[in-house]
Amino acid sequence: MKATAIAPSNIAFIKYWGKTDEALRLPANGSISMNLSELQTTTTVKFNKDLDEDTVFIDGQKTEGLKKNRVTQHLDRIRKMAKINLGAKIVSKNNFPMGGGLSSSASAFAALTLAGATAAGLDLTEKELSILARQASGSACRSVPDGFVEWLGGKTNEDSYAVSLYLPDYWEICDVVVIVNTSEKSVTTTEAQKSALSSPFFRERLGKINDKISLLKKYLGEKDFPKFGELVETEALEMHAIIMTSKPSYLYWLPETLRLMILTRQWRKDGLAVYFTLNTGHDLHLLCLQKEVEKVVRLLKATGEVKNVIINRPSVGVRLVEGHLL
Amino acid sequence: MKATAIAPSNIAFIKYWGKTDEALRLPANGSISMNLSELQTTTTVKFNKDLDEDTVFIDGQKTEGLKKNRVTQHLDRIRKMAKINLGAKIVSKNNFPMGGGLSSSASAFAALTLAGATAAGLDLTEKELSILARQASGSACRSVPDGFVEWLGGKTNEDSYAVSLYLPDYWEICDVVVIVNTSEKSVTTTEAQKSALSSPFFRERLGKINDKISLLKKYLGEKDFPKFGELVETEALEMHAIIMTSKPSYLYWLPETLRLMILTRQWRKDGLAVYFTLNTGHDLHLLCLQKEVEKVVRLLKATGEVKNVIINRPSVGVRLVEGHLL
Repeated sequence: MKATAIAPSNIAFIKYWGKTDEALRLPANGSISMNLSELQTTTTVKFNKDLDEDTVFIDGQKTEGLKKNRVTQHLDRIRKMAKINLGAKIVSKNNFPMGGGLSSSASAFAALTLAGATAAGLDLTEKELSILARQASGSACRSVPDGFVEWLGGKTNEDSYAVSLYLPDYWEICDVVVIVNTSEKSVTTTEAQKSALSSPFFRERLGKINDKISLLKKYLGEKDFPKFGELVETEALEMHAIIMTSKPSYLYWLPETLRLMILTRQWRKDGLAVYFTLNTGHDLHLLCLQKEVEKVVRLLKATGEVKNVIINRPSVGVRLVEGHLL
Repeated sequence: MKATAIAPSNIAFIKYWGKTDEALRLPANGSISMNLSELQTTTTVKFNKDLDEDTVFIDGQKTEGLKKNRVTQHLDRIRKMAKINLGAKIVSKNNFPMGGGLSSSASAFAALTLAGATAAGLDLTEKELSILARQASGSACRSVPDGFVEWLGGKTNEDSYAVSLYLPDYWEICDVVVIVNTSEKSVTTTEAQKSALSSPFFRERLGKINDKISLLKKYLGEKDFPKFGELVETEALEMHAIIMTSKPSYLYWLPETLRLMILTRQWRKDGLAVYFTLNTGHDLHLLCLQKEVEKVVRLLKATGEVKNVIINRPSVGVRLVEGHLL
């Protein structure tokens, strides 16, 4: 009745923004991402017949309120599938800051899904795990398969899940994560997503997204880094254009985020193949090839704007591990 | 053969972005603005039969290259209308920094139009002056009439000009201009506008712009400041969403710009009716009612981010003055 899983966060090249079903978290469009080797959540779930309700510890702190509810709701899905009715103790640990745009909910809910399902005695396929993780946090479904991943948008609960496009060693891309600020963002992704459809531009985005996904897969297949990077950067700006023109309008970037975006373009003008992307948050992801990563990090550190830099390579998806946290 | 004019810059509430005719500067859509009492260009034009070509002085510096060419091309339009063939000396003075998003080209070309036309012996109506100014710099046509101004988009040279909606004393709105950086922007408005139509969102914007113009005129008519401010802020973000999703994509904001945008929203949450807008540049315009202006300035100064603050009231348009600059 106890299991521990570790899951990577992921960075979306084509973004997930807007849902067609709020409860099932069915996305308005498909998306493409890469799992990140150094941003991980480890979670142990232990069901116990003596527990009436769940207790949740995240990063050493007992967690209550909305965050705890989201965990309990997800375990309810698992309990229902496993036909058990036990409370659980959940201990979860992130090796990176939450709530700044590093998609801690992706890694957290992918890890919770596998650890919870296994502790409950379920033996689920990758597809089933991805479907289950998606219901807790959309992007978590992409942290289930290995490497470079496509979330097939889907129209129903059963056909909305992620699959691996390429294994981690396919392409030596680095995602240099720049933590510009360790504070949590003021609006959660879940909350902001609700207003996605109110942007005057959302429908136009949707109309063109499948062409964009095809193009991204083409550049990925050809390993054409400049075209790939240009498209990924454009896509990030498009999502933030949607976010800032929604009602209500949100601004996720911080001044430091913008400064680094401007600098990234300057470095590119100077000949360095580096592109930015970002999730719904203020922390920036700089994409470059392995051979350029030292130079990118050196430039970043010289700016003096950077709290922390985390160099990620493509990673496997969620998996069970031996070392339990309780 | 000598005349001097003074013209205000203006701040657009509904933006001018994208042209249907590059040479005539016919805009893709109509726009609405307010002339600004404290951002002014004064220009003296003196035609002289001894001059073969024009000499241009801006802010005490002899000007060559593209900037001078744009002045000469505009005087060519005037010379053609007046059927004269004389070189001119042009002396122009701004009381604010150029190239940071304060629309110095609006005030500059409105002043040049009236001074040049008068010095050439032309006696033009307000409409004719507005049409003429537009051909040099689109937004300059809005600096011709008084107060709150609508640029009727138009389809031909003759029907694309600005008219006054309300005189300056109609509404006690202040535009607190915040100069966050005195450097010039890296891409001119003219250059960036060329790519407006390449944004995936441009067509969608155009399809809804006339409704937005009607709504803005309604709020202006009702003096409903919160609704007016909300719409103006939304519109500014929409224009910048277009700019950042164009090909090429441009980022006009600086980190300090963004910091003040975030703070403005915070101040609003705290109960202060203040809204931001900005042109194609990094300097910010904060709109508030006269009774709040002291508080806004105090808050701005406390941020430590602000190089200079200029408090503007609605202004009359371009007019002739006695004191020549040469």
